[in-house]
Amino acid sequence: MSEQHLIIGGNAAGMTAASRAKRLAPSVAVTILESSRHISYSICGLPYCLGGVVSRFEDLVYFTPETLRNERGIDALVEMRAVEILPSRRSVVVEDVRSGRREPFRYDKLLIATGYRPLTPSLEGIDAPGVFTASRLEDGQAISSWLASAPRRGAVIIGGGYVGLEMAEALRRRGLSVTVVEKSPSIFAALDPDMAELLQSELESNGVRVLTHREAGKILTRRDGSVEGVEIQGTRRLLEADVVFIDVGVEPRVDLAVAAGIRLGKTGAIEVSERMETNIPAIYAAGNCAETVHRVTGRPTLAPLGTVAVKQGRVAGENMTGRVARFPGWVGTAAVKVFGLSVARTGLSSQEAQREGFSVVEEKIESRFRAPYFEGGGSGTVKVVGDESSGRLLGAQIVGSEAAALRIDVVATALAAGLRVDEVSQLDLAYTPPLGALWNPVLIAVNALLKKMKRRY
Amino acid sequence: MSEQHLIIGGNAAGMTAASRAKRLAPSVAVTILESSRHISYSICGLPYCLGGVVSRFEDLVYFTPETLRNERGIDALVEMRAVEILPSRRSVVVEDVRSGRREPFRYDKLLIATGYRPLTPSLEGIDAPGVFTASRLEDGQAISSWLASAPRRGAVIIGGGYVGLEMAEALRRRGLSVTVVEKSPSIFAALDPDMAELLQSELESNGVRVLTHREAGKILTRRDGSVEGVEIQGTRRLLEADVVFIDVGVEPRVDLAVAAGIRLGKTGAIEVSERMETNIPAIYAAGNCAETVHRVTGRPTLAPLGTVAVKQGRVAGENMTGRVARFPGWVGTAAVKVFGLSVARTGLSSQEAQREGFSVVEEKIESRFRAPYFEGGGSGTVKVVGDESSGRLLGAQIVGSEAAALRIDVVATALAAGLRVDEVSQLDLAYTPPLGALWNPVLIAVNALLKKMKRRY
Repeated sequence: MSEQHLIIGGNAAGMTAASRAKRLAPSVAVTILESSRHISYSICGLPYCLGGVVSRFEDLVYFTPETLRNERGIDALVEMRAVEILPSRRSVVVEDVRSGRREPFRYDKLLIATGYRPLTPSLEGIDAPGVFTASRLEDGQAISSWLASAPRRGAVIIGGGYVGLEMAEALRRRGLSVTVVEKSPSIFAALDPDMAELLQSELESNGVRVLTHREAGKILTRRDGSVEGVEIQGTRRLLEADVVFIDVGVEPRVDLAVAAGIRLGKTGAIEVSERMETNIPAIYAAGNCAETVHRVTGRPTLAPLGTVAVKQGRVAGENMTGRVARFPGWVGTAAVKVFGLSVARTGLSSQEAQREGFSVVEEKIESRFRAPYFEGGGSGTVKVVGDESSGRLLGAQIVGSEAAALRIDVVATALAAGLRVDEVSQLDLAYTPPLGALWNPVLIAVNALLKKMKRRY
Repeated sequence: MSEQHLIIGGNAAGMTAASRAKRLAPSVAVTILESSRHISYSICGLPYCLGGVVSRFEDLVYFTPETLRNERGIDALVEMRAVEILPSRRSVVVEDVRSGRREPFRYDKLLIATGYRPLTPSLEGIDAPGVFTASRLEDGQAISSWLASAPRRGAVIIGGGYVGLEMAEALRRRGLSVTVVEKSPSIFAALDPDMAELLQSELESNGVRVLTHREAGKILTRRDGSVEGVEIQGTRRLLEADVVFIDVGVEPRVDLAVAAGIRLGKTGAIEVSERMETNIPAIYAAGNCAETVHRVTGRPTLAPLGTVAVKQGRVAGENMTGRVARFPGWVGTAAVKVFGLSVARTGLSSQEAQREGFSVVEEKIESRFRAPYFEGGGSGTVKVVGDESSGRLLGAQIVGSEAAALRIDVVATALAAGLRVDEVSQLDLAYTPPLGALWNPVLIAVNALLKKMKRRY
């Protein structure tokens, strides 16, 4: 009987681990257990399907169980929910979602890649038809059907994070009037408020209403039980809405792991080694259910992003076959596009760096990203954050054109290498008039930051 | 009498040094001596003026002597040619180009920023009207006048480097039939031949004829002395041409420095410290007349690029005021756009790495630069080069869309930090479907390279 790798969760981390393990060790039997109906899709693409930019949900799917079997020799069992891990027996009890029948699956190596679960506020009416979150392809399909089933005029988005804003754009593109309700003083906590302001303006100039420092109260329903509107807490204000989308954060799905005695870290996600090992032999965890070291602070964090999940999955898959691979962590890189504005960030924002106790210095510049005499290429605002006491660059935020936002990767690379601000200021970046500026705006920002620092290193 | 900073050369390095010195030490008198008629322009923009993408040569000029005086308090004297440096007297003999009158200029600190001179092959007819190189704004104006003065049908570009190819495009856009003659087996030596091939196809599919492994013989002239065509060496083949553009390389302008006893390095450019000091006290050199350390090899090189010149100029200007600034060198980053194809490179090509004695491993992939279900963003070919024995990444080349080529900066940053291939493979780069792919193609290429390496670090 061949060695058995069992993987709970058929998306970014799980799929990547499965593919990697099977490629490195073709004789191993690799089985994916997925509780939903689909494996291997881009959940990030969901808002673009709803907004009509991508035509069909099927376009988001990379593999079906059939193509995965045929092309990669991996078994993926859908609508099969892992209900209990029994480490002493090296087996997992699995329930067929349709029939309710349970059976044990033996493993030699087990990967927990159960991902995250969207948080929902405990509001009256939160379960009403027309209230959605998005963590699975089915969620997108359900929203799509809902939108198609009747005239939909208004939408309220509760929470102004990545998905919330993408959904705001998608629903606006569908012709709905859209309001974003954000309880913080500023939307999009991944950016400092001064940078998030640019994003808010872009939303507003595209007809999205943004209410900050406001909390949703109860969700009002019609006689048929479906959503009618959202009341703003502490006011009598009612926002009419035929659709409500919730984006108030996510939490790692760790119930299975906890029940099996697998240790969680302080973040509430599964504690893993650099090799993605849990505290129980032969059990690995990867993706959004596992912790990720933030390389700028050196501390474990939640990093609920596909880019992190696939890298962790790859490392887990490699280690499961007996090789040695290590995942060094992330640096906090993320991007979003909202209407015409591209946004990217990496490392720590000024606010985050302050909370972490760094001696924060920050600088912000606006610049074009091409030679001044050249059309196009756009412009952007670049904010950079440094640490006065060590001289290290801590992070950057860019809001502007696509070509501007892409430059975040320079800083992401510099952060992974632990470069100081003065070292970044001397980087040899590409220039030719049709593609860039002689002084790359990242360098302009970093040079300006360097000027503010007392010791110039 | 205030301290006097004298700067020979009023372009990238000289202008940047002047501005920096004046900003840091406003009481210093800063004087630029420029032998041509213009200071402070983008020579890189010249082909775009000729091609009609940028409308006027004046658009390439950042400062005139007047605006420089008014806005920055710096004196720039044009058509004033430095003819001799007298270090023992701390003075420079300067000739008024129009009157021929000479006078001495005293300095406390001197910067040599004389740039480069285009090489010209010693061909019969090389001085004929209609044969051009481009190192000054006047060259562009002269080409432009020449093109305007009579019907121009054919052009021959001798040498297929950066400017040669940009000129090929510019002249093609002007409706001329264009032939590039390159003596190497492959155009564009900054890329390995397999990558340069993609560039050659792009030229050819835009109607530019490319002859490789062919040398220009004599330049034939008409009765009025102007160019008529170029003969290919060793053949009877004649390429008809009303314009010939030469791009066979450049050399540092070092005559003045040599005559003053300033030491050159092995590259033939002025040897400088990290602070841009020459061997003679109070004399600095910066820009394309000075050597630049290649940070991948650790050896001095010629780096005739504006990006390097401005950084060296900034460092020189800072040191001239008594501060301490260091220029760590470049990593060989450069970019060019030819018709619809964007090209970028950094570090060492595979050929260069072999010449340097590295144990070269290379890999090449083709990839899209966005989520597969997302339009646009283009695609590109990414080639990466690593060193088997140290595990270090040595360089990359990208040919494709603009968004593809911009990714070179990730590698440029990694090279500056000396990252190993495995470290680069774990970089946390930005992703969102409208802007990029979940696996950034640079990471795909680097992961593929890593697979080929015996020790995986």
